[in-house]
Amino acid sequence: MCCILYKQTNICGGDSIGELQFEQIEKQLIKSIKEKNFAKTAKILSDLAPVEAAELLGELVENPTEGLIIFRLLPKDFSAEVFAFLEPDQQENVATAVSDEELMALVDELAFDDKIDFIEEMPANLVTKILSFTEGRERSLVNQFLNYPEDSAGSLMTIEYVELRENMTVKQALAHVRAIGEEMETIYTLFVKGASRKLVGVLSLRELVVSSDDTLIKDISSDNVVFVYTTDDQEDVADLFKRYDFITIPVVDNEQRLVGIITVDDILDVVDVENTEDFHKMAGILPTDEEYGKTSIFREAKSRFLWLLILMLGATFTGTIIAHYEEVLLAAVVLSSFIPMLMDTAGNAGAQSSTVVIRSLSLGTVEPKDFLTIVWKEMRVSLIVGVGLSLINYLRIVYLMRMEPAVGIVVSLTLFLVIVMAKVLGGILPVIAKLVGVDPAVMASPLITTIVDTLALIAYFQIATHFLII
Amino acid sequence: MCCILYKQTNICGGDSIGELQFEQIEKQLIKSIKEKNFAKTAKILSDLAPVEAAELLGELVENPTEGLIIFRLLPKDFSAEVFAFLEPDQQENVATAVSDEELMALVDELAFDDKIDFIEEMPANLVTKILSFTEGRERSLVNQFLNYPEDSAGSLMTIEYVELRENMTVKQALAHVRAIGEEMETIYTLFVKGASRKLVGVLSLRELVVSSDDTLIKDISSDNVVFVYTTDDQEDVADLFKRYDFITIPVVDNEQRLVGIITVDDILDVVDVENTEDFHKMAGILPTDEEYGKTSIFREAKSRFLWLLILMLGATFTGTIIAHYEEVLLAAVVLSSFIPMLMDTAGNAGAQSSTVVIRSLSLGTVEPKDFLTIVWKEMRVSLIVGVGLSLINYLRIVYLMRMEPAVGIVVSLTLFLVIVMAKVLGGILPVIAKLVGVDPAVMASPLITTIVDTLALIAYFQIATHFLII
Repeated sequence: MCCILYKQTNICGGDSIGELQFEQIEKQLIKSIKEKNFAKTAKILSDLAPVEAAELLGELVENPTEGLIIFRLLPKDFSAEVFAFLEPDQQENVATAVSDEELMALVDELAFDDKIDFIEEMPANLVTKILSFTEGRERSLVNQFLNYPEDSAGSLMTIEYVELRENMTVKQALAHVRAIGEEMETIYTLFVKGASRKLVGVLSLRELVVSSDDTLIKDISSDNVVFVYTTDDQEDVADLFKRYDFITIPVVDNEQRLVGIITVDDILDVVDVENTEDFHKMAGILPTDEEYGKTSIFREAKSRFLWLLILMLGATFTGTIIAHYEEVLLAAVVLSSFIPMLMDTAGNAGAQSSTVVIRSLSLGTVEPKDFLTIVWKEMRVSLIVGVGLSLINYLRIVYLMRMEPAVGIVVSLTLFLVIVMAKVLGGILPVIAKLVGVDPAVMASPLITTIVDTLALIAYFQIATHFLII
Repeated sequence: MCCILYKQTNICGGDSIGELQFEQIEKQLIKSIKEKNFAKTAKILSDLAPVEAAELLGELVENPTEGLIIFRLLPKDFSAEVFAFLEPDQQENVATAVSDEELMALVDELAFDDKIDFIEEMPANLVTKILSFTEGRERSLVNQFLNYPEDSAGSLMTIEYVELRENMTVKQALAHVRAIGEEMETIYTLFVKGASRKLVGVLSLRELVVSSDDTLIKDISSDNVVFVYTTDDQEDVADLFKRYDFITIPVVDNEQRLVGIITVDDILDVVDVENTEDFHKMAGILPTDEEYGKTSIFREAKSRFLWLLILMLGATFTGTIIAHYEEVLLAAVVLSSFIPMLMDTAGNAGAQSSTVVIRSLSLGTVEPKDFLTIVWKEMRVSLIVGVGLSLINYLRIVYLMRMEPAVGIVVSLTLFLVIVMAKVLGGILPVIAKLVGVDPAVMASPLITTIVDTLALIAYFQIATHFLII
């Protein structure tokens, strides 16, 4: 449960934070909207956090015209913050409905990174209009930011940081922070530039505040700085944040000039997006950028079709094997009834190992050089699991299903071999993928299942031919 | 690629940030360790970030005695920071090797949350020893923190925050921040308490700095505060950080007294842990706390055994179905060669849908109330995918494999039905799980595969009996 102090009153949500119901506020809001008292509605909303106001505005106001009226009644700087949290389609509604002057003022109020995010989502005609409002230097900056690759550090950064010069005094620096700090994304980490705008150091506001007025910035700033390039991958940037417990990291261009900063709140989103990508890849889905609720049917179908097709054709091998051993099956039709169980268990055992190893590789707790350790570990784990399951299986076949012991031996022996094979392969295939430069996530459940199914069937029929003397 | 400015020199790592090689530093270190110049080694390490020093200490120094000597030569406050980043087994080595006085000094220097993390990992005799060093009030605090449930907000929080009183002036508050700020985890968000230590507001350092000296804290602090209880689940806390872009959040007890704060760097770890748990659950692995490289073989086997067993027994149904239709199979043995393909495709199609829906539920972009939307979407997606795959399959059977069109029709029709069934079930089972209070992640690939495999076989044999007139 999560609660919010609102005007000294303690308002608690439901059981889950996700469905926070600010019941009292919502009631007031619903009433004021019903009464068409838009000024009151705007007043209630403006006491909330921007993200809450944006959500309630989207949920409660069904009529876009009314929504627009309320939005216009919000205090100017607050309305820009709310705007940043609206869904792209709501943003587009607002942007097309307001006058040019209003749109210009709104865009002007937006934080730089929110501005970029907004422009990226708008259709071309709106983008042209918005760009025509922004002035020379800012327009070229916006264009530059729009050009950074989607998953790069450049696309994540903002330009709203405080920059100090090496030879400033503490007094000058403090005055500078006070003068421009209000507009900045963070003032708690300050960045020091040297000759030709090069990044040479960082300084925390804390250190600045406790230093004496005449000290030079270069004497108190740390010259041990971790930074990233605009072209670095966002996943690597997230790893740096995790490793160093950063709140913010500087971004430089190829000449090592400071061009922006990335803050940790954007990194939380990156971690979610990257994990979703892994979940999808591991289920044989091509990555899409959009949320499930928002993709079109065709795009969703497209992202799932390719792997299903590849895997379906891959499963042809298993069919060929069965066709090849047709005579064995005809001689002992009972064998065919164990095929699904053997295939399923092989797939599941392989999926377990590959998932553990893929996740460990992605978190960096296991590396390709641990290859032999993984093989050795998976062999021993599969030995334990395999012996246990085969034994249960044998008892079931012979005592519960009352079949011949020979059948029990064939099925259980195959099961044991298949589990060991599946687990070892599940453990090493992701590592091999990583070594040859393929994303290990591809080696997850669907692919490993197809591979071990084939092996399982071959093993099954070979063992059956031997033991049942067909 | 990531680079580090180190003493004004630009040191770049390899291709990947994960394997950052501070080659120059490492060379110096290796040399100084070889020369047994431990003072120099300690000097080089103390210029690095604590996390880097801890990693290099662990990697380069193979001899524990030498490692201990170097560790002892590090500056005191730095050594505590390095200690916090050591692996639990390395921490234990240090803690048992040093004298009681040294251990006492070390524990004293540790940040409170690092202290708790350290004590939690140590064996009982060390814990008793460490607790005997800590004084009355702190000892009871430590005990209290050790008692918070593992995944609760209480277990994540630290007590090192700055607390202000409502009736302080800005001048008093600033003096307070300067006096105690050095020891605190963050001074950028300040927490305001009212009567009986209740949390009544928050204030940013930025607001404090720009306000005039005589202003009262209660006049500038925000009384609109989002907070959590010590008993709240860490996953819910992480959701709040994502929603509000927080850097820190206050934690209160049942009487709404402020007892700690949680900072965003710990939330990044929570997100990783929770995602790993989901990855494992979705592959039918019981959650373990430890990293893959560190679990024992038996624990690893145990975490995988249960689901493999359940799913193996579940696959018995499929076997029963095949046994039941033995005569159909005998009459047209060719049918059995398509069983693996049908089962695999059913499993894969179901896994895709369940993964997408499980992930959307976990991110909150889809909710149980969207049930019908999900069914409708999955039906349409599966229609497109199903028609495409069935068509390709038919052409393959009739023109490539040159089998009778009747076989092609039976297999392709089954394939189509099975894909639709699998996708719709894969979409709704996670939602149903959520509605009845089961973790949706359980409904992932392994379970859905077993369910749709059964349905696939029934459909196959029913259709075959009809069309092939057996």
